[in-house]
Amino acid sequence: MNAQLKTERVFSTEGDYKVADISLADWGRKEIDIAEHEMPGLMSIRRKHAAALPLKGVRVTGSLHMTIQTAVLIETLKDIGADVRWASCNIFSTQDHAAAAIAATGTPVFAWKGETLEEYWDCTLEALSFPDGNGGLIGPELVVDDGGDVTLLIHKGYELEKGDESWVNSTGGSHEEQVIKALLKRVRAERPDFWTRTVAQWKGVSEETTTGVHRLYQLAEAGTLLIPAINVNDSVTKSKFDNLYGCRESLADGLKRAMDVMLAGKVAVVCGYGDVGKGSAASLRNYGARVIVTEIDPICALQAAMEGYEVTTIEDTLGRADIYVTTTGNKDIITLAHMQAMKDQAIVCNIGHFDNEIQVDALYTSGATRTNIKPQVDKFTFGNGNSIFLLAEGRLVNLGCATGHPSFVMSNSFANQTLAQIDLWANKDSYEKKVYLLPKHLDEEVARLHLEKIGVKLTKLTREQADYIGVPVEGPFKPDHYRY
Amino acid sequence: MNAQLKTERVFSTEGDYKVADISLADWGRKEIDIAEHEMPGLMSIRRKHAAALPLKGVRVTGSLHMTIQTAVLIETLKDIGADVRWASCNIFSTQDHAAAAIAATGTPVFAWKGETLEEYWDCTLEALSFPDGNGGLIGPELVVDDGGDVTLLIHKGYELEKGDESWVNSTGGSHEEQVIKALLKRVRAERPDFWTRTVAQWKGVSEETTTGVHRLYQLAEAGTLLIPAINVNDSVTKSKFDNLYGCRESLADGLKRAMDVMLAGKVAVVCGYGDVGKGSAASLRNYGARVIVTEIDPICALQAAMEGYEVTTIEDTLGRADIYVTTTGNKDIITLAHMQAMKDQAIVCNIGHFDNEIQVDALYTSGATRTNIKPQVDKFTFGNGNSIFLLAEGRLVNLGCATGHPSFVMSNSFANQTLAQIDLWANKDSYEKKVYLLPKHLDEEVARLHLEKIGVKLTKLTREQADYIGVPVEGPFKPDHYRY
Amino acid sequence: MNAQLKTERVFSTEGDYKVADISLADWGRKEIDIAEHEMPGLMSIRRKHAAALPLKGVRVTGSLHMTIQTAVLIETLKDIGADVRWASCNIFSTQDHAAAAIAATGTPVFAWKGETLEEYWDCTLEALSFPDGNGGLIGPELVVDDGGDVTLLIHKGYELEKGDESWVNSTGGSHEEQVIKALLKRVRAERPDFWTRTVAQWKGVSEETTTGVHRLYQLAEAGTLLIPAINVNDSVTKSKFDNLYGCRESLADGLKRAMDVMLAGKVAVVCGYGDVGKGSAASLRNYGARVIVTEIDPICALQAAMEGYEVTTIEDTLGRADIYVTTTGNKDIITLAHMQAMKDQAIVCNIGHFDNEIQVDALYTSGATRTNIKPQVDKFTFGNGNSIFLLAEGRLVNLGCATGHPSFVMSNSFANQTLAQIDLWANKDSYEKKVYLLPKHLDEEVARLHLEKIGVKLTKLTREQADYIGVPVEGPFKPDHYRY
Amino acid sequence: MNAQLKTERVFSTEGDYKVADISLADWGRKEIDIAEHEMPGLMSIRRKHAAALPLKGVRVTGSLHMTIQTAVLIETLKDIGADVRWASCNIFSTQDHAAAAIAATGTPVFAWKGETLEEYWDCTLEALSFPDGNGGLIGPELVVDDGGDVTLLIHKGYELEKGDESWVNSTGGSHEEQVIKALLKRVRAERPDFWTRTVAQWKGVSEETTTGVHRLYQLAEAGTLLIPAINVNDSVTKSKFDNLYGCRESLADGLKRAMDVMLAGKVAVVCGYGDVGKGSAASLRNYGARVIVTEIDPICALQAAMEGYEVTTIEDTLGRADIYVTTTGNKDIITLAHMQAMKDQAIVCNIGHFDNEIQVDALYTSGATRTNIKPQVDKFTFGNGNSIFLLAEGRLVNLGCATGHPSFVMSNSFANQTLAQIDLWANKDSYEKKVYLLPKHLDEEVARLHLEKIGVKLTKLTREQADYIGVPVEGPFKPDHYRY
Repeated sequence: MNAQLKTERVFSTEGDYKVADISLADWGRKEIDIAEHEMPGLMSIRRKHAAALPLKGVRVTGSLHMTIQTAVLIETLKDIGADVRWASCNIFSTQDHAAAAIAATGTPVFAWKGETLEEYWDCTLEALSFPDGNGGLIGPELVVDDGGDVTLLIHKGYELEKGDESWVNSTGGSHEEQVIKALLKRVRAERPDFWTRTVAQWKGVSEETTTGVHRLYQLAEAGTLLIPAINVNDSVTKSKFDNLYGCRESLADGLKRAMDVMLAGKVAVVCGYGDVGKGSAASLRNYGARVIVTEIDPICALQAAMEGYEVTTIEDTLGRADIYVTTTGNKDIITLAHMQAMKDQAIVCNIGHFDNEIQVDALYTSGATRTNIKPQVDKFTFGNGNSIFLLAEGRLVNLGCATGHPSFVMSNSFANQTLAQIDLWANKDSYEKKVYLLPKHLDEEVARLHLEKIGVKLTKLTREQADYIGVPVEGPFKPDHYRY
Repeated sequence: MNAQLKTERVFSTEGDYKVADISLADWGRKEIDIAEHEMPGLMSIRRKHAAALPLKGVRVTGSLHMTIQTAVLIETLKDIGADVRWASCNIFSTQDHAAAAIAATGTPVFAWKGETLEEYWDCTLEALSFPDGNGGLIGPELVVDDGGDVTLLIHKGYELEKGDESWVNSTGGSHEEQVIKALLKRVRAERPDFWTRTVAQWKGVSEETTTGVHRLYQLAEAGTLLIPAINVNDSVTKSKFDNLYGCRESLADGLKRAMDVMLAGKVAVVCGYGDVGKGSAASLRNYGARVIVTEIDPICALQAAMEGYEVTTIEDTLGRADIYVTTTGNKDIITLAHMQAMKDQAIVCNIGHFDNEIQVDALYTSGATRTNIKPQVDKFTFGNGNSIFLLAEGRLVNLGCATGHPSFVMSNSFANQTLAQIDLWANKDSYEKKVYLLPKHLDEEVARLHLEKIGVKLTKLTREQADYIGVPVEGPFKPDHYRY
Repeated sequence: MNAQLKTERVFSTEGDYKVADISLADWGRKEIDIAEHEMPGLMSIRRKHAAALPLKGVRVTGSLHMTIQTAVLIETLKDIGADVRWASCNIFSTQDHAAAAIAATGTPVFAWKGETLEEYWDCTLEALSFPDGNGGLIGPELVVDDGGDVTLLIHKGYELEKGDESWVNSTGGSHEEQVIKALLKRVRAERPDFWTRTVAQWKGVSEETTTGVHRLYQLAEAGTLLIPAINVNDSVTKSKFDNLYGCRESLADGLKRAMDVMLAGKVAVVCGYGDVGKGSAASLRNYGARVIVTEIDPICALQAAMEGYEVTTIEDTLGRADIYVTTTGNKDIITLAHMQAMKDQAIVCNIGHFDNEIQVDALYTSGATRTNIKPQVDKFTFGNGNSIFLLAEGRLVNLGCATGHPSFVMSNSFANQTLAQIDLWANKDSYEKKVYLLPKHLDEEVARLHLEKIGVKLTKLTREQADYIGVPVEGPFKPDHYRY
Repeated sequence: MNAQLKTERVFSTEGDYKVADISLADWGRKEIDIAEHEMPGLMSIRRKHAAALPLKGVRVTGSLHMTIQTAVLIETLKDIGADVRWASCNIFSTQDHAAAAIAATGTPVFAWKGETLEEYWDCTLEALSFPDGNGGLIGPELVVDDGGDVTLLIHKGYELEKGDESWVNSTGGSHEEQVIKALLKRVRAERPDFWTRTVAQWKGVSEETTTGVHRLYQLAEAGTLLIPAINVNDSVTKSKFDNLYGCRESLADGLKRAMDVMLAGKVAVVCGYGDVGKGSAASLRNYGARVIVTEIDPICALQAAMEGYEVTTIEDTLGRADIYVTTTGNKDIITLAHMQAMKDQAIVCNIGHFDNEIQVDALYTSGATRTNIKPQVDKFTFGNGNSIFLLAEGRLVNLGCATGHPSFVMSNSFANQTLAQIDLWANKDSYEKKVYLLPKHLDEEVARLHLEKIGVKLTKLTREQADYIGVPVEGPFKPDHYRY
């Protein structure tokens, strides 16, 4: 752990990759081996498509947390034929030994734990830059996205090449927005038609998370979506598993590795009671914390109440709560004023995709004294003497302070991703520029691939029973509106 | 309790009603008063529409468990103008004091606990038979259905009047099927054009439960649905509350009142892990039972496994499980052969809508010795000396052996029912013969009506936040495919 | 259920018994048969001592809730030789069909649901009055007590016969106290040396519950205890099972049968976090209620906090809590002032042994309007318009409104009772007038008798392992101070 | 994390201490500051005794996991006057930054993560070796022990100096036993009367854990205990909090940091259902694992069953369980044969005090191939191709793979330790060579010190209520046999 305190920024960049330390590859490989046993969905897809290679030669850019689990996803995509380049989708989420192991196999990966924002977007660009065979560069044919940063970059770059400079030249916006704009201007100078050539060959994107999906629907509604997209997040075997059961395991993991805090007896506030909030609240309660939920949606609020949670506003909790977790996908959930009014030593963190759920920028410029305890753990002391702890600078606490969701649940999510990639390529000539969901039979298939590993025995419908309820014997078993 | 053992079938039938004992009306009224405090959704709808009377003079037939909660629904429908006639939708589900209280107010109700099948269908017909003002009888303009028995009867009657006698004259089918056929023949003889005249004025049905909704979709797909229908079951505030949280409370209640059995330490098998199964399994586990789930659907099976349940086939549980509960909506879930192979003194019950989940008929004719312990509790002893207990003759154990779901959750379901009735009438000229869902804003509204009662404080979106996630400040907040 | 509303007080008293309705005996017998399958501890003791009859001819008076489970205890005592007379220890706790079944076998039993206090104490005296063989009456040689009423009566009667009239002639005290005093005066008049003759042959008492045990320790400390006593309550297999797991099942049962109330979403206050409080709080939380605990003991309070309960004073909960349950063994926990300040329609009940946990007398005389909803459910409306519901008149809600703890857990308690009776008789010549605990090997034996029924397989220590931890291979395994 | 993979053994030993890296002191101090806010019990004791200095000048040797929490204990002992030397009581449990921070203040500490057994016992000796003021060395006046290693060493050393060489010269025993013998021979050669002089001034030991307490009772029973001892483990505020709630938090933490494994859906076996087992099982179940318990004690087994766990033998679980945790305090719980028969990739760990719960030595010499994944995580592959993962070499997984129990619960344990030290010194002239428990009022006091931090409000007894139940208004509230 000590090394984290004195990291010098020396990178391993001998090949077509940039990682923290290539010597970590062996360790990473051992953990990938372990993960493979926990990811039956991906391993089964590998076996099934080993001969046909449905993505043979297809250029795939991935922008998704560069963890051990993602390494298994990357190698699955490669096993079914893809030509892959990868970046992480969060500055803190890379596991350096995972990145090293992937780099060591010759797959271009650009990711390390603790990137600056400038480095982050440079890495994203690297992951988008395939040799075009003529000494030049060309973008991907397919994109695996998580949060939509790659999709955003291509859309914005394309917009710029099409002559619309308004956004790139606008001022204001967050620091990150300025970084993106600068990058796009540089690309335009260096590779004038890069985005146009890329879009011409771009066949689709599969998107991992609630926030990114939301962006896609907005693009589609606005009529500006450039490619077909598959909403992987809303496969049941993604959102009802990864978001719920993944967070139920990884939130506490992040809190524990960051703060070693006793959760029993604490008052914890979970902002938002969607799938992520449900998993987060369950985890904290199971440790003996008293959980308070905040919600805007009366249905989710009523669900929380039915589960025995107190549901109130964040203002009502100030001064009595010890831990705050944002899970909403919205912004300004925890404001500077909230933080200033919290109980001394309150812990504040976010498990939603973007860091604007907490007003981190406002905190930084508030005059509060910042004391770094260890990487991804900072103490801010206000004028009145009270302090709060901010974890992972307001970014995903489970990935910033721990190692993210465990392998088994990610196997579900990534099986959906892989099936979506295969589907996008297979239908590249027929799909419209819309947002698609994977069909229910694939959703059920993903679940099915994970049952044997954990000893589940399914019951089989008889023909008579299937007829009685009007479904095929082999499924799918539910109408599309079924909520699970 | 003793009275139950020696009930003589003397009914109270002095007015346009038939109930067990009209003298119970006072007691029923006291419990209705209590229930009103627990049903803020219905009470709010009463207040809101007290002046406009949106169902003024509309003939409404209800076929829905005649409980205290339903009494509050009935009086809500009346308060907004409807002309109501009512029957229960299960032979065991009536609470006699609730029926008496309703009858005492002059509302025609035909229901008592422990009807024969013949009586049950006669009651249904009574509920369908409004005076037509000319000394004759006419059916309803709207139907509140639960399980679809009224919808079935009208469709089958209409089919017969249209000249298709094939079904009515077919042999085979269950005993209940024969009862229905006999009834339809009798109606045809006595009121030759009753169904045709009824259908001519029938504007719609709102259906309460999974099973009934399933029937409606089958009719719609077959093109034989006669009216617009609203699927109330799949409102989030219905299926994710009533089915889940209702059963979490009422299953154990049924088991306890029937058997006084200790649940801690027992092995309990829950067949099916839909919403009803989820609530049932949670309840049993919370009491300290070790719960085993059976499932056909790999997604639901994986959910059960993620919650820590053993998931296997029913065959694997025979001999080691103490309690069996069916929740599937399918048939032949527990067969005679299963029951014969169970552990001595196993308890068998059903909380799904229809009683064919358990092979009750086969059990009755199997040669097993039947010993009645008390109403709705029977012991069957097989040749090998082992016994099982069958509750409520395989019908809904929570309504047969206890009093069904508690008021608060039913207020959600019935608020949806009432809104659906209002909606059907308001749109009677525009709706097609299809199955509709209530729009999300009404779903959210139903939830909202229940928050204050239990002390929930909602957070309000700022305009900026609403814009950021692209929803109106007042909602609806989620896309239609959102699963909660 | 209806019968409860119009019960006429006609008793069955043809033999040496007094019960509500002897015709209920058949039903009671069927339920006793079922209970025997759930009470392996008692059945095993029957088999083990069937030949030796260790209580042969011993006069045993029982004062313990006359339920189905107690019927199995009574028949166990008889099977091992005892001459038994029985009364209930609570005016509402008798199950009339259980009493009838016992009476029908010729065992003198004096108990019915809904006794007046005068009737209650008369029944207790009847249970104490054995024929002495010379046409007179004599008390028991052993007593099975629950709450200590029989022990109190004998001690007070003996005190009076010894010439100390101070207590009997004192005024003040509760209504119940006056009833006891009147009874003792009557006995003195009718049977002048009854208590002296009884005490001369009285060899011991085994006491069931926390409150009664507390009385015994007080008598022993004061040097006025007349006989050896065994504290059955503090056998691990009693207090850590009956008090905890029994209440976890029966509290909700009482609430549901009384009020049919939805527990999910409600705020429930549990006063006291001992074993009974722990079980009560767990049950309510498991239903989705938000539970608040009140405590005087900092250790128990810290336990509650570690389990995630809010711990505060009752005053802090007034106006926001929906349900109140007292579990303390102390008095005046819920005062009249508390009740007057509660949220409208709050439910108030007690699951501790005595009814003085709630200020019921003060409520009755407060001017509040009382409306009886059904037996054991009363609504009190205060001047400000608010109402509360009081269950079972403040007596044990699980026995008053439902059927008490289920059989399996009572088999543990009653196995301890039976072993205690055998032990008292076997050591009648050596035990001192002190309070004893059963030795640990018997405690472990009681547990062992219940394992097979629920499929538990024990691991066996090897000789080496036993030596390593310094215990016999067959146990006992723990030091006496071990807390489980 | 990477640093762990390439640690070179360079120690910081410039002063009277030996730690891994003194430059970690600043980081350690920051975490100590955080911990102080979570340890109100210790901080309150500091304040209370700041003036009186009850341990002024007393030589105290501590042998207890050298963590951040222990650092707060050490500084508490120093604040109330003690002269302290410290070692860890487990080769893997030291947090190097905690040790550094303590060393930096001038307190002699000898501990680092990953000691060899030889180093471990040398550190223990160093912690026992105070300057005697005359240029020589002398042992402590008081000992804070955890597991009893210091107590063992002094007893064995004293025995040797008294002329009994039998144990020291015996062969056989574990490798660790041989290390101890060698050390004692060396001490005898170098400091011939060290133990005799030490024992002459030794006034007592307070012991932290179940296993160490067990050793003390064995010494006391054998009549060979040399000093008064206080059993801190069996304070309610220790064993019912640290053992239970501590493990409920730290077991999963160890598993997660070691393996990042998904716990939901897994089958986990917890061997032993004492307090540690109860906490461990609860934690795993709360994550969605299906937990199976093994037990030898029928009472604990019945408790597990009442909580809904399957209880069976370890043999019955082989091939179907994914995770094994030993919690027994006994040896040979998981044998080599068990490990060889486990499901491929099973995870095996121990959370009991000593590492002999798992047959680690047998595993090492079994011919299985060992692959080190990362520190404290080893994979062993058997001849049949199956592997298991062994965590922390069979030592305490929560301390070896994570950071042990969190501060708040340790504040309870260590408040007991501190009070015990004060008590031993205050009564040094009166206590006998026996094992004492802290009196209940101190136990309650420890709890009381922790309530405010987590917002608990206690209810106060009225005088009348206190008299009614026969306790002082301020407590203690329970009899000594009360089990909580």
